[in-house]
Amino acid sequence: MINVIIIGNGNVATQLSKALMKSDACNLVQIYSRSKPDNYFIEKNIETTQKLNKIKNADLYIISISDDAISEFSKKMNFKNKLVVHTSGSVSMAELKCNTNKGVFYPLQTISKNKKVSFKNIPLCIEAETKNDLKLLNKVAKSISNKVYFIDSEQRKSLHVSAVFVNNFTNHLYKIANDLCNDYKVDFEILKPLINETAKKIKKLSPKEAQTGPAIRNDKKTINKHLELLNKNQQKIYTLLSNSIRE
Amino acid sequence: MINVIIIGNGNVATQLSKALMKSDACNLVQIYSRSKPDNYFIEKNIETTQKLNKIKNADLYIISISDDAISEFSKKMNFKNKLVVHTSGSVSMAELKCNTNKGVFYPLQTISKNKKVSFKNIPLCIEAETKNDLKLLNKVAKSISNKVYFIDSEQRKSLHVSAVFVNNFTNHLYKIANDLCNDYKVDFEILKPLINETAKKIKKLSPKEAQTGPAIRNDKKTINKHLELLNKNQQKIYTLLSNSIRE
Repeated sequence: MINVIIIGNGNVATQLSKALMKSDACNLVQIYSRSKPDNYFIEKNIETTQKLNKIKNADLYIISISDDAISEFSKKMNFKNKLVVHTSGSVSMAELKCNTNKGVFYPLQTISKNKKVSFKNIPLCIEAETKNDLKLLNKVAKSISNKVYFIDSEQRKSLHVSAVFVNNFTNHLYKIANDLCNDYKVDFEILKPLINETAKKIKKLSPKEAQTGPAIRNDKKTINKHLELLNKNQQKIYTLLSNSIRE
Repeated sequence: MINVIIIGNGNVATQLSKALMKSDACNLVQIYSRSKPDNYFIEKNIETTQKLNKIKNADLYIISISDDAISEFSKKMNFKNKLVVHTSGSVSMAELKCNTNKGVFYPLQTISKNKKVSFKNIPLCIEAETKNDLKLLNKVAKSISNKVYFIDSEQRKSLHVSAVFVNNFTNHLYKIANDLCNDYKVDFEILKPLINETAKKIKKLSPKEAQTGPAIRNDKKTINKHLELLNKNQQKIYTLLSNSIRE
């Protein structure tokens, strides 16, 4: 069994702890967090602590705290010959400042504390300095997910910005559509099957093949009709994205 | 039984014809199209014609041809006391120029000719000039879909532009992410669970509630890291959408 300690009690730390509790390959030794941990863990008799000097011995320490705090906090993690990793998509492995072996264990998914999540389908992007550590991370990752990828820090950065496009920005486009529905007193529900189908479509087609609409057809008549209905900010976004599609 | 004739053999015409063949309330009398119809209909013994003067008698004529051709074509549809509708999201009911009753029967979904589709979950947006015609369209629509909405021409326009945001533009964001993955030699597959979850999330949360990411947190450090990885066009889109989210 691989002994694991989780540092943090945010969304990822909480869900990752729950997944590790079910892993056959791992033993969740302890959760460290500054504030009190989720009651769930106390009920399940998982050892928790709020004191740094009470952190126990383990094979793997997973720091799952806010991106900005990782580097500074890692300085306190000086467990020789142990492996310390973080879970951030935007922080490079080198930003870990501990005198230990280092690595990254990045789950690429939008994770909420209170929404049940199955790690089985969450891609885990792992990175380590040594082959042995990568082997260890791979074992941990495979015990909770079917989708494990070896991804270096540069690749992970590109995935993180890609995730902003397909998640944050896509959601903002949903928001604009929702605003339009409100303006014209239309039920946003009507658009949900299309939203669903748009996401499903690229399971089989590449985004390039799946592209449709007035911009790719260069259908100026429809584009102009659309622009008339939009406010200034929406027009800017419509025009920039349409031009980008056409190119 | 309501006797229906379909005009056209594009994606919507083809799939709508197939759905109507299964409807208990409708009888698909004939399909008219300029070019030869899909073999499927010939095999199923559906009457087809390429001659305008061979168009039969029916209760409802559904014009499902390209947006630009609807107005001109409708002039040829002079069946007194019959109902003629089109299936376009961006064409108003008034653009039908026939001396008949008029209406609209707009399926809000991305529909391909060759991909099997279940109309049951496709929102059908219907509009007509008279109560009786609306009743007729409602009966037809309900016989093939569980999602029928009364939507006037102004509302339909707003839905059509909203559909561009949630479908065409969202797909373009997928395309940008795919390009980034290619540039950094990362498997685009890694992003698919996130794409799926992003679409699923708004089934329960409003897009406003679902919004996460560096822009809404005004996390300039991460935003700047991201911008460094992007080309000029991607940077423009990233900046405009981030600013729009922050506002």
